[in-house]
Amino acid sequence: MTSRVRKPSAAIAQDVPQIQPAPGGQRREYWIQAETVKWQITPLRKDEWHNHPLSSRNTYTAYIYRHMTPGFAAPIGQPNIPGPTLYAEVGDVIVAHFRNADTKLRQAVTMHPHGVRYNPEYDGAYMGKYTRAGGFVAPGEEFTYFWECIPGAVGAWPYHDHGPNHTLNTSRGLFGAIVVSERGAKVPDVSYTLMLHQLTPPITGLNRAFQCINGRAFAGNTPTLKAKVGQDVALHVFGMDSNFHDFHMHGHRWRDTGGAPTDTTTVGPSETMTARFTEDNPGRWLYHCHVFSHQDEGMTGWYDVEA
Amino acid sequence: MTSRVRKPSAAIAQDVPQIQPAPGGQRREYWIQAETVKWQITPLRKDEWHNHPLSSRNTYTAYIYRHMTPGFAAPIGQPNIPGPTLYAEVGDVIVAHFRNADTKLRQAVTMHPHGVRYNPEYDGAYMGKYTRAGGFVAPGEEFTYFWECIPGAVGAWPYHDHGPNHTLNTSRGLFGAIVVSERGAKVPDVSYTLMLHQLTPPITGLNRAFQCINGRAFAGNTPTLKAKVGQDVALHVFGMDSNFHDFHMHGHRWRDTGGAPTDTTTVGPSETMTARFTEDNPGRWLYHCHVFSHQDEGMTGWYDVEA
Amino acid sequence: MTSRVRKPSAAIAQDVPQIQPAPGGQRREYWIQAETVKWQITPLRKDEWHNHPLSSRNTYTAYIYRHMTPGFAAPIGQPNIPGPTLYAEVGDVIVAHFRNADTKLRQAVTMHPHGVRYNPEYDGAYMGKYTRAGGFVAPGEEFTYFWECIPGAVGAWPYHDHGPNHTLNTSRGLFGAIVVSERGAKVPDVSYTLMLHQLTPPITGLNRAFQCINGRAFAGNTPTLKAKVGQDVALHVFGMDSNFHDFHMHGHRWRDTGGAPTDTTTVGPSETMTARFTEDNPGRWLYHCHVFSHQDEGMTGWYDVEA
Repeated sequence: MTSRVRKPSAAIAQDVPQIQPAPGGQRREYWIQAETVKWQITPLRKDEWHNHPLSSRNTYTAYIYRHMTPGFAAPIGQPNIPGPTLYAEVGDVIVAHFRNADTKLRQAVTMHPHGVRYNPEYDGAYMGKYTRAGGFVAPGEEFTYFWECIPGAVGAWPYHDHGPNHTLNTSRGLFGAIVVSERGAKVPDVSYTLMLHQLTPPITGLNRAFQCINGRAFAGNTPTLKAKVGQDVALHVFGMDSNFHDFHMHGHRWRDTGGAPTDTTTVGPSETMTARFTEDNPGRWLYHCHVFSHQDEGMTGWYDVEA
Repeated sequence: MTSRVRKPSAAIAQDVPQIQPAPGGQRREYWIQAETVKWQITPLRKDEWHNHPLSSRNTYTAYIYRHMTPGFAAPIGQPNIPGPTLYAEVGDVIVAHFRNADTKLRQAVTMHPHGVRYNPEYDGAYMGKYTRAGGFVAPGEEFTYFWECIPGAVGAWPYHDHGPNHTLNTSRGLFGAIVVSERGAKVPDVSYTLMLHQLTPPITGLNRAFQCINGRAFAGNTPTLKAKVGQDVALHVFGMDSNFHDFHMHGHRWRDTGGAPTDTTTVGPSETMTARFTEDNPGRWLYHCHVFSHQDEGMTGWYDVEA
Repeated sequence: MTSRVRKPSAAIAQDVPQIQPAPGGQRREYWIQAETVKWQITPLRKDEWHNHPLSSRNTYTAYIYRHMTPGFAAPIGQPNIPGPTLYAEVGDVIVAHFRNADTKLRQAVTMHPHGVRYNPEYDGAYMGKYTRAGGFVAPGEEFTYFWECIPGAVGAWPYHDHGPNHTLNTSRGLFGAIVVSERGAKVPDVSYTLMLHQLTPPITGLNRAFQCINGRAFAGNTPTLKAKVGQDVALHVFGMDSNFHDFHMHGHRWRDTGGAPTDTTTVGPSETMTARFTEDNPGRWLYHCHVFSHQDEGMTGWYDVEA
């Protein structure tokens, strides 16, 4: 199956290096395939915040990263937006075996990671005649990316399509998260990745826009986060469209990178912020983008804290 | 008087806890009522910066937080946008006695604070069937909020309506500021709160949009800030609409939360930044949002520094 | 030649002070004139990233800051967007001799600097009847600005027009950069200033909008950055329009002002961010604004790193 854009000759699979972990580091191996699925934006057909019914017309053809067992043998869990979160520590190499399993849309796609280090072959970026091996994975093709978790890569980062039509295909749902920790760092008790992005009529074929979190819109449909008092909580929040968002959580606060307390943090496109706090406030809380017009179009959710 | 949205049964006043200050802390008591007033956006009918006349059609029905004497006995000062700034130190509890005194708009409204800690009852957020006591204050009703100034709450924060139509009513003017300091911290010699927000035709019924600071547009109408050389100045700047703004002051600079010098700082919706500096530059200065299209619609003002 | 706006009487050249450098500091003298030039936005007529042809209709009348030899005797180099970068160290005074050499547009223009300290006369801001000497430089006139590089001015800052029509004339191209370093600080081996701004049909008379870097749009037309492995690289990135942008560089990362690793940083209008890193990753890389809709309109470029 060919894609709508011709494969640049420079992108034809060359010998590409196998990157090894740093001493003491690990290979973190993932099998991920791009596929299209029917995706419901508001499966509840209700906005629980305002207790309003929502239209039953809420399904579109999403293009997603699907988490697979080794060798792409079988899917792990249900299709999801975002794709699997790739966890690693400093010194590790993330080995992302990628397969473009969709043949209907005729799109060459890729995985382009933020934050981690990589050779040009593993950039996952279409670049016209300068495209390298991993920058054009045509329908039916596979490619393996090697991403190095150097010390400067600590943090939460997005990965997303960067093929020849990456604005289109990232908007359709081709994105996920990478979380790199210091070696041996304490793992938070509770960790969530929240991707903020819009789904517009040209993408969905629906008659309205949605401001989404993880492919879903309006509280009850978006992730209902859960934690218990005393737990160490990490919320990784990503901008995944052309908008600027700002994430607000009721009843809680965290520190910005300069150490100042905040409860509302701006994230631009493909920027990340992590809210890390020890849970101390039981109850049901709203979280939402504080851009009022985005809240009103669905960028809201629940956070339930058990005493 | 009933509101246009029905009161959720969970919001009917339960027994709610009286929160006490931490040892050595104080109760900071405020009486605040929501009311509608006729508000002039450009009382001078002139843009002093460009020396242009402005239309006399500049009045709209604002919905504001009015500062009252104890027991809501009488107003303190003139109606204002923003509402009163609530000052406290770490260890204090802000006790906000709130009354919804408007009966014409038929809106249930609230006070939702940022930054401070609060029990779910004092979140001031409408949440459909999950709404708690303080999340729906119908016309004519009262509610008392208790907000705890924990150590992580140091900073400047907005409060605003978070009732069932909070986008609408916050846009009409229902917002104010909270400033929490370390206990015993030096109070700045000069302190201003500047709320950046737009007033659009659907809100005002006027035939043009205004980019406002504290409900006013264009230099001469917006606050003319004043200070003297040698004074310790704090400017608390808040985003209070769906836009991203960035605040610029001529002839001055401050430090971002990471310690880097800046003279232009982005604030997203309900984000805050504080410019703190020792005044050293006498003269008349412009301050403005550096989004050019916002300056052009009025988000500008004067700062007069005496030698 | 008079300008379209009348010169405020307060702006008529008074005796203005000559500002001296701090002990041990220098006068950094620049001669700069505002002039109009025919400017090609996409001189290659090609988008090298996507290997697409671009329309030959890509020229507009830019209003630019031209770098001149002493006494405005002759231009230095070709006309450029942005204007010359003004370099200085703490303790220095930048002496900017400015001449408004355009007589066709009938615009009074100025140089307004960010970051540095200046007396009101050297603010370069039109302020209606409060305008000072340097705030209105009519066609054919000259003015000399003195800008003090105090310790708090370390960083990269824009300068731009702030005359009576500064939104218009800044949009036409009247902007440049100031870089202030600690005294005796190591100079980066490679340093670039990248100004992110849009050129719209009302400014250009063309039939489409461009999202530009330094007056150019689409990779191959925008600056192709160059460095070698081991070099100390500084990229100074500026927002120069009414949009918020976020700058992403493939294959690299830097620290935000709080010390957190990032590879995508938001810049608001007239905000700056500096990405500083030791080059360690040879190859051809994309850099771009990560607002997808800005990438698609040209805010992209190449970075070539030699091994």
